[in-house]
Amino acid sequence: MIFIRAFSRAVRFQRKIFGEYSSSLCLQQATFRDILSAPEGPEGAVSHLRGSSLKVLGCREFSSWALPALYSVRHQIHQQSNSYVEEQLDPFSLVADELSILANRLRAMVVAEVPKLASAAEYFFKLGVEGKRFRPTVLLLMSSALDVSTHEPPSKTIENTLTTKLRDRQQCIAEITEMIHVASLLHDDVLDDADTRRGIGSLNFVMGNKLAVLAGDFLLSRACVALASLKNTEVVSLLATVVEHLVTGETMQMTSSSNDRCSMEYYIQKTYYKTASLIANSCKAIALLAGQTTEVATLAYDYGRNLGLAFQLIDDVLDFTGTSASLGKGSLSDIRHGIITAPILFAMEEFPELRVVVEQGFENPSNVDIALEYLGKSRGIQRARELAKEHASLAAAAIDSLPGNDDEDVKRSRRALIDLTHIVITRTK
Amino acid sequence: MIFIRAFSRAVRFQRKIFGEYSSSLCLQQATFRDILSAPEGPEGAVSHLRGSSLKVLGCREFSSWALPALYSVRHQIHQQSNSYVEEQLDPFSLVADELSILANRLRAMVVAEVPKLASAAEYFFKLGVEGKRFRPTVLLLMSSALDVSTHEPPSKTIENTLTTKLRDRQQCIAEITEMIHVASLLHDDVLDDADTRRGIGSLNFVMGNKLAVLAGDFLLSRACVALASLKNTEVVSLLATVVEHLVTGETMQMTSSSNDRCSMEYYIQKTYYKTASLIANSCKAIALLAGQTTEVATLAYDYGRNLGLAFQLIDDVLDFTGTSASLGKGSLSDIRHGIITAPILFAMEEFPELRVVVEQGFENPSNVDIALEYLGKSRGIQRARELAKEHASLAAAAIDSLPGNDDEDVKRSRRALIDLTHIVITRTK
Repeated sequence: MIFIRAFSRAVRFQRKIFGEYSSSLCLQQATFRDILSAPEGPEGAVSHLRGSSLKVLGCREFSSWALPALYSVRHQIHQQSNSYVEEQLDPFSLVADELSILANRLRAMVVAEVPKLASAAEYFFKLGVEGKRFRPTVLLLMSSALDVSTHEPPSKTIENTLTTKLRDRQQCIAEITEMIHVASLLHDDVLDDADTRRGIGSLNFVMGNKLAVLAGDFLLSRACVALASLKNTEVVSLLATVVEHLVTGETMQMTSSSNDRCSMEYYIQKTYYKTASLIANSCKAIALLAGQTTEVATLAYDYGRNLGLAFQLIDDVLDFTGTSASLGKGSLSDIRHGIITAPILFAMEEFPELRVVVEQGFENPSNVDIALEYLGKSRGIQRARELAKEHASLAAAAIDSLPGNDDEDVKRSRRALIDLTHIVITRTK
Repeated sequence: MIFIRAFSRAVRFQRKIFGEYSSSLCLQQATFRDILSAPEGPEGAVSHLRGSSLKVLGCREFSSWALPALYSVRHQIHQQSNSYVEEQLDPFSLVADELSILANRLRAMVVAEVPKLASAAEYFFKLGVEGKRFRPTVLLLMSSALDVSTHEPPSKTIENTLTTKLRDRQQCIAEITEMIHVASLLHDDVLDDADTRRGIGSLNFVMGNKLAVLAGDFLLSRACVALASLKNTEVVSLLATVVEHLVTGETMQMTSSSNDRCSMEYYIQKTYYKTASLIANSCKAIALLAGQTTEVATLAYDYGRNLGLAFQLIDDVLDFTGTSASLGKGSLSDIRHGIITAPILFAMEEFPELRVVVEQGFENPSNVDIALEYLGKSRGIQRARELAKEHASLAAAAIDSLPGNDDEDVKRSRRALIDLTHIVITRTK
């Protein structure tokens, strides 16, 4: 039974890579063993698989995002235990079907009465520009990872009904989280005068600042209506606080003093507000809806918080090491906008003279070059990666600390959540 | 007892006009009879009272806003029944003490961690720029107007505790409504590139668009956290929908086609979304918190909706008939921004040729002059006022339709709500 499930999920995963209409020959040709046996390392594994791939709008981005890291994780696991590999799956594929349903529901949820507002609100929910769907994936996996059958249900039918109802409510949290996330992106792009997002023109660039502000407000209000429908005021409060954190983080970034910009503590606090709070508190909301104990809800929060911090630290590293094409935005965009992140902060610890450059700002491009020179001869990038790894480990430890459970689905989801911590720190885009 | 209450309220009202530190002589000199006996009409009544007034920051605006209209209402009542006059009070003064507490609580509620965000968020809650506090006044009066003692309480003490708790929750609705209102003002000012608001520089003008957008988001999130604390999901949903309406109304105004701009139906719908929905739905929330029946909640909604529509219709009239000084913004600002309101729509019914001018837009100032010429020879202003009066009457009728109640406080608050409908349509600023 587990084998059949694992196989059907493997097929779904391959469909994600090769397209919904890939031939059975194609399915036979490319298996997980192909990823693991690709000789040229992670990039090789991707091109190896991509050789016969059909272009699937919307799936391409996250597949290519997940695969190199997956290769690395698999590679380690493969070396440890061959038998374990068959059961390991891409975390995204575990919830792929549900993600599709969720994407459709999201599109239905953001329909607005006024045509222009409708176009603006649905802009980043359209097929192909939905992003990596990282947050909904985490939340759906967290939903499965937290077992709810703590006592014997009156009957199997009632148990199924309750489980379905809970799952619907947890899916709703995933949808609300995406709406809040996209709303914050829309407003952030207005604030940053950004012209691209997810490889296409930003909404403010395409439809103007005004509609981008309104569309953000609209998504927040729809998220709030959806939250109210869950009829759990603790969850409403939790996610409303997240919106406040997003705003606080953005303001911290925008209004920081020279001292603030040179402080690691300030940077971590800002990163929590801007990135980690959303995933941390929505993970907690998933646990609360399931009626979990405070301890379990805190572990869910810890997972989200540390995963979020690791994610952002790597994002900040990639801003220095990535390329425009793979990032979907200009490389070095942070430092060019005067935003100081972990790699530079660590470099500054080694070379205190870098602080003078940071204090001067980066309007003068030669200051960017000087900072990069210091960064290059420092261990800044390496230490930022190490800090990300520490947070990834803490996230994994939170999952390991959850009360023991023998259910195969629960165990699989927990493994997938741990896999995600590796994917986050080994990704190259 | 009633007399003492009426007297202490009269004293409070006079304090509002003459300042908290007015002398007892001053209190003796200026009574309501002075307002009613002022020979020169409403404006005379104001200057009559203002003669010895001390300037009180924050109170001056709403007193002068309410008084001319109050004069008119009082004048009519005076002619009908002299004995009734003693009990009649300015609706604002009935809740003046509570409004002060509420203003302080609002300032505490919008405190933010990051200094710049704190300054931005509190900008319109500071003493002196709190505006007319029209919405909180309506909501506090509505709270008193809806009697909750439908059954015999177990004891007087329990009854008092329950009433206090309910009043706290209803005050919270008033605070949330103000936060949503101010958040929408901040975003609207960004969208309209406005440079003044409430007689001072708009937040976007003083602190920039970015902080204005963030402060708006922050207020919305704080409103949402406060809403969640009420633990009533119907109320959360109701006020979240209001935010959606505010956005919808603003988008309707911003993206209207030529046909839309010439349609009275579109104008009324937009006005409901932009102005009336907030007061209508928060009135309904007051009723729901009090555990009122659906019928009573609907009457509260009807009152708010019609009062809101009347308010905006008069606002639109005053944009043509008022002066910059009394409005706190440039006169004719709507038409100069291409926003077509009721007076022009009515004028267009009389002079269909005006439509061509409207379709051409108002970037050319001579088109404004042509439109004003048509408006001057039409009954546009008069018909817009009549429509406002109709809505004011409908609002008053909703209060009259509430279940009968003999409690003096309830009756007084209902009368004040009806008075407000007159104040709204007779105001001159």
